[in-house]
Amino acid sequence: MSCFFIHPHPHLSSTNMRLKLPITCFILEIILIILFGVLVQYNHETDAKEWYNETQSGHSNYENDFYYRYPSFQDVHVMIFIGFGFLMTFLQRYGFSSVGFNFLIAAFSLQWATLMQGFFHGMHGGKIHIGVESMINADFCTGSVLISFGAVLGKTSPVQLLIMAMFEVTLFAVNEFVVLSVVGAKDAGGSMTIHTFGAYFGLVVTRILYRPNLDKSKDRNSSVYHSDLFAMIGTLYLWMFWPSFNSAVTAHGDAQHRTAMNTYYSLAACTLSTYAMSALTAHDGKLDMVHIQNAALAGGVAAGTAGEMMLTPFGSMVVGFLAGIISVLGFKYLSPILEKKLKIQDTCGVHNLHGMPGILGAIVGAVTASVATVEIYGGGMEAVFPDVADGTIDASFQGVRQAIALAVTLGIALLGGLIVGFILKLPVFGAPPDTVCFEDSIYWEVSLTLLFCCSLSFLRRFIQTSTLTPEGRSHRQQVS
Amino acid sequence: MSCFFIHPHPHLSSTNMRLKLPITCFILEIILIILFGVLVQYNHETDAKEWYNETQSGHSNYENDFYYRYPSFQDVHVMIFIGFGFLMTFLQRYGFSSVGFNFLIAAFSLQWATLMQGFFHGMHGGKIHIGVESMINADFCTGSVLISFGAVLGKTSPVQLLIMAMFEVTLFAVNEFVVLSVVGAKDAGGSMTIHTFGAYFGLVVTRILYRPNLDKSKDRNSSVYHSDLFAMIGTLYLWMFWPSFNSAVTAHGDAQHRTAMNTYYSLAACTLSTYAMSALTAHDGKLDMVHIQNAALAGGVAAGTAGEMMLTPFGSMVVGFLAGIISVLGFKYLSPILEKKLKIQDTCGVHNLHGMPGILGAIVGAVTASVATVEIYGGGMEAVFPDVADGTIDASFQGVRQAIALAVTLGIALLGGLIVGFILKLPVFGAPPDTVCFEDSIYWEVSLTLLFCCSLSFLRRFIQTSTLTPEGRSHRQQVS
Amino acid sequence: MSCFFIHPHPHLSSTNMRLKLPITCFILEIILIILFGVLVQYNHETDAKEWYNETQSGHSNYENDFYYRYPSFQDVHVMIFIGFGFLMTFLQRYGFSSVGFNFLIAAFSLQWATLMQGFFHGMHGGKIHIGVESMINADFCTGSVLISFGAVLGKTSPVQLLIMAMFEVTLFAVNEFVVLSVVGAKDAGGSMTIHTFGAYFGLVVTRILYRPNLDKSKDRNSSVYHSDLFAMIGTLYLWMFWPSFNSAVTAHGDAQHRTAMNTYYSLAACTLSTYAMSALTAHDGKLDMVHIQNAALAGGVAAGTAGEMMLTPFGSMVVGFLAGIISVLGFKYLSPILEKKLKIQDTCGVHNLHGMPGILGAIVGAVTASVATVEIYGGGMEAVFPDVADGTIDASFQGVRQAIALAVTLGIALLGGLIVGFILKLPVFGAPPDTVCFEDSIYWEVSLTLLFCCSLSFLRRFIQTSTLTPEGRSHRQQVS
Repeated sequence: MSCFFIHPHPHLSSTNMRLKLPITCFILEIILIILFGVLVQYNHETDAKEWYNETQSGHSNYENDFYYRYPSFQDVHVMIFIGFGFLMTFLQRYGFSSVGFNFLIAAFSLQWATLMQGFFHGMHGGKIHIGVESMINADFCTGSVLISFGAVLGKTSPVQLLIMAMFEVTLFAVNEFVVLSVVGAKDAGGSMTIHTFGAYFGLVVTRILYRPNLDKSKDRNSSVYHSDLFAMIGTLYLWMFWPSFNSAVTAHGDAQHRTAMNTYYSLAACTLSTYAMSALTAHDGKLDMVHIQNAALAGGVAAGTAGEMMLTPFGSMVVGFLAGIISVLGFKYLSPILEKKLKIQDTCGVHNLHGMPGILGAIVGAVTASVATVEIYGGGMEAVFPDVADGTIDASFQGVRQAIALAVTLGIALLGGLIVGFILKLPVFGAPPDTVCFEDSIYWEVSLTLLFCCSLSFLRRFIQTSTLTPEGRSHRQQVS
Repeated sequence: MSCFFIHPHPHLSSTNMRLKLPITCFILEIILIILFGVLVQYNHETDAKEWYNETQSGHSNYENDFYYRYPSFQDVHVMIFIGFGFLMTFLQRYGFSSVGFNFLIAAFSLQWATLMQGFFHGMHGGKIHIGVESMINADFCTGSVLISFGAVLGKTSPVQLLIMAMFEVTLFAVNEFVVLSVVGAKDAGGSMTIHTFGAYFGLVVTRILYRPNLDKSKDRNSSVYHSDLFAMIGTLYLWMFWPSFNSAVTAHGDAQHRTAMNTYYSLAACTLSTYAMSALTAHDGKLDMVHIQNAALAGGVAAGTAGEMMLTPFGSMVVGFLAGIISVLGFKYLSPILEKKLKIQDTCGVHNLHGMPGILGAIVGAVTASVATVEIYGGGMEAVFPDVADGTIDASFQGVRQAIALAVTLGIALLGGLIVGFILKLPVFGAPPDTVCFEDSIYWEVSLTLLFCCSLSFLRRFIQTSTLTPEGRSHRQQVS
Repeated sequence: MSCFFIHPHPHLSSTNMRLKLPITCFILEIILIILFGVLVQYNHETDAKEWYNETQSGHSNYENDFYYRYPSFQDVHVMIFIGFGFLMTFLQRYGFSSVGFNFLIAAFSLQWATLMQGFFHGMHGGKIHIGVESMINADFCTGSVLISFGAVLGKTSPVQLLIMAMFEVTLFAVNEFVVLSVVGAKDAGGSMTIHTFGAYFGLVVTRILYRPNLDKSKDRNSSVYHSDLFAMIGTLYLWMFWPSFNSAVTAHGDAQHRTAMNTYYSLAACTLSTYAMSALTAHDGKLDMVHIQNAALAGGVAAGTAGEMMLTPFGSMVVGFLAGIISVLGFKYLSPILEKKLKIQDTCGVHNLHGMPGILGAIVGAVTASVATVEIYGGGMEAVFPDVADGTIDASFQGVRQAIALAVTLGIALLGGLIVGFILKLPVFGAPPDTVCFEDSIYWEVSLTLLFCCSLSFLRRFIQTSTLTPEGRSHRQQVS
């Protein structure tokens, strides 16, 4: 029955997006366009006149930040749209929504993030100046929203997601401003500002949106063979380009170079510990795709804060190794507890991929910062810890700053998630009923097809039915 | 019946490629190799001796154009082979042909384009000099051919496609030469030369190849669940890398930087208007994958000409916003009219993704050019509008040039498509019969498998048949 | 029967990875971490202090090797994880293992390769200095292991693969050292060191592991429709990024630029000859996905050694053209002979994609080197053939060096494969029995699903059985 892509409730008006989605999209986009018209300007590297003047005063075109950062930007861009989008296609009949809503809320978030982040740290004479670095930061902020999307995946309408994105981007920008500019912490790869923030925000939202009867949709809340292969596309792009993610906005030169390399080794070590733990915790030694798809990425999350520091490849590998172990243990033992005891229905397990590894990354960052010395960093201290380099503070206090930043991030994420969760609970946004969560056909035209949907259980039922005829029975013996 | 990948006409000699395809490929490739041997040389940046001499006279290795353009080249390359290739896999049993013929004609076109574009604007002392910029231009020309491929998708043999590519590349090079060098228009991202040209050329070809009985293949002219997910891979790569596409051959420095950024915001705005229009025009508020896969890209097309100009992010977003609306409306209302009234069977809807947005982009380019001032561009005017900068013409005349360029492009595309369409109609190229269009097994070894092909209608028929037994009947009530 | 993802031998203890895989992964990773802690250091471009000192002495950040090589590194990285990983998903029910074991052994190999290659050519005062170039080289070495993986695909446990990787990386580093540093050959794109080595090593291993009863698994040793489309993702990423692969570690400037361009044209020509030969050798003129997925890449392999030389686009196209022909002929005629006569069960046909084209590439490299002259290379000779440039040897002797390098590579690969093959034969690594090769469910939790597995033959049997009821019979006539 539920085995076909029939429209389960063809006339269910509450989830009908005919007016809700267009109105939301048009209002948001028109507001964005107006604000961009009023507030946003090219920065000195994207403006024809200003860059020309810079080249006249001795700069060369290859010094334009475009050439330092655009390849990293494109890698990050792939992570946001292909990486996050396909990682979430593991659900058997939620592929259109995973990729499609990911696409929609990312396209919205990156515009809104340009404005929000610009308000807090890009204003020049009342105008927001933008270039490749602001584009990367907008993608980063979008990544945080997509992490929260992972927690509520399958249980929210696109209108809810856009509303969530609007608030979350705003709070992200506030938190980022507090962490980086007020507290003075470092977080180039966003272990705190992106991963910890996105994960705990999303976890609180999904807690507020708790559905006691979600098991009515449990048939769909699992993967099938092909959907797991599609999800591996997402996993691998996230894994491969994470070195670009962590290094995209660090200082030029050695800092970008070192961050990419640290992340590379952290991820490699994490992959081995993930495979080991996956086989070890399985009841029959078989690898679990959920672990491979997710926990193998924890090394990138955990190297987000300290990646730009002199963590060394050795240190990166230790961090990645631990992150993989923690993440698999989280999927295996903690997630069921969170769901049963704390009523946190975390569809993608973002707590295991982004939450705990993000906190681990923050702690590693604090420790690594606190032991920074001039012997190790030399004149390069200025690029990594400017306040330590100029003597304003000593390294151990930088460690304290990092710890405060983690606490601030957790506070804003939890409080923000709480408020936004209650807003999303308003019964006007077209959330799906409990019986048809994790189902594309609520919001998408889905061609009538067997694919993705014909589970063995159906076939078995079918065969059992058919095989009550004498001929079928003989066949059944062949099959089972 | 048609539900299995059986070979519908196992002995249909007309579509047999045993000799036709090898002969065509070998002749074309041998001609290419000979012409490359006679005519093509390394340019000063790929030649060991010449570049060494440049470095001796003060240039540094990082000034080699490779470092300015190769990352963009690779992004464009991905768009051509993965982007276009997978975008067309939406058809339920034409995935091998979509990706495979895309691969074949792209591999041919980029070689032929190197020669044709070289004849018109790369000759130095009787030799064609090549490097990364000519590689990008060859990929661009290839993109135009692939757009036309989208219009005739499913209805042509690989030999027809190679013949079409040969002529289209030639005409593309002529048109590009006229538009850029004779008329003096600007079109860095190819709204006119690539998109408008490719779309209208392809539309005329498909008109000439009109098949009155194409509805005999209508069962296959649609998507299934998985094929739509594969197509989203194509869509997202096109979307993500379009900023690289539009900026790949603009001037170094601010121009590349600005173009990429304008395109980024145009696409983001386009995505929101696409989702809005898709839900608004559906009969029950459900999103349509056809719109998401295609219309969300129209913002990249429409920013192709003006992207390098001082369009501003605000202007880019307005353009993208309109492009998304136009494109969805085209899919919804115009395409059926074109098919019924004008007999244009446009498989991929290239008129909606490349045709109208290309014209919109040309118009935006003309308007943006005509209002260019020295106040805005400063010394950077030279890189964008050299003839305006040196006083040869004023900006409003540059706008006129842009308009002429659009007219020229449309003229050459329509006339060229007409002639090439009639050539392709010659009954010697192995076109498929009306009954087996959109079918891989004509031209490919296809493993016998249920996948992709077992439509619900088949299953229903099957169930209906089975369920005439009493036991089945009870099951049927369960299922439907 | 075997048509469902049931666990064929649920209690088969020999393939149970519960302890074997975790123990292997943990031991290897802990050894790696310890050795990295003792031996590995940032190089002068990733170290904060050292790079700062370099910038103080006149170097600019854009001279950091990161900006020359990181985009190429990321392309290579995609080839390793997506390219090789998805290329091998063509098997109908081995997708998890193809992508997943590829991921595991690549993550291990790149760490181990950093150490092994460092021992042989990266030691500075007892420490291994690493940066982006060593990361690329580690990925290259990993590529060689993955080629060997292609030969044994479907017939080995993950523990066997890790053991193989450990030995193969070590031997790769030895061979690379001998070829490049002792013999003094050039092999930037690794026709010899990567492709020839990986292919012949893997072929000998699969010969030693010969399974006389492998035809018990022959149902699974083939593709289905979707798995071929997934494999095309791998093919296209390898094809598109091969120019980056061959140029990733060549000299800066013209050498990188030229190598990428030569490879681009070699691949394009190869694609046309592949399509031609595929249609020509088929019994009914139909294209074979096996050829397209593999032989079209032979042009990249064959341009690996000579790509950085002044091969010219013309020469590259001739090489690519021949490589495609040889490769298709190998798949069609040689592979069956190798299997029947020499008992070499080469799952992916690596002999046709990497073996023969690798040897072709080595020969082309030797010939191209031997005809190098100062007229052609000018001062650029130093970057390509330093010993010829400084007069130590003449060009023809460089050709001899290249030939010796090929012989050395073949010798070490064959001997190494022999030894490692016998080690892998030890019955403690959990190899699958002959009856369940090419089967994910041995090592992976696989959701019960029809997808990928329900072959037509099963359906036919099912229909035949069902249609013995009178109603079914009428249906059967409809279907077949």
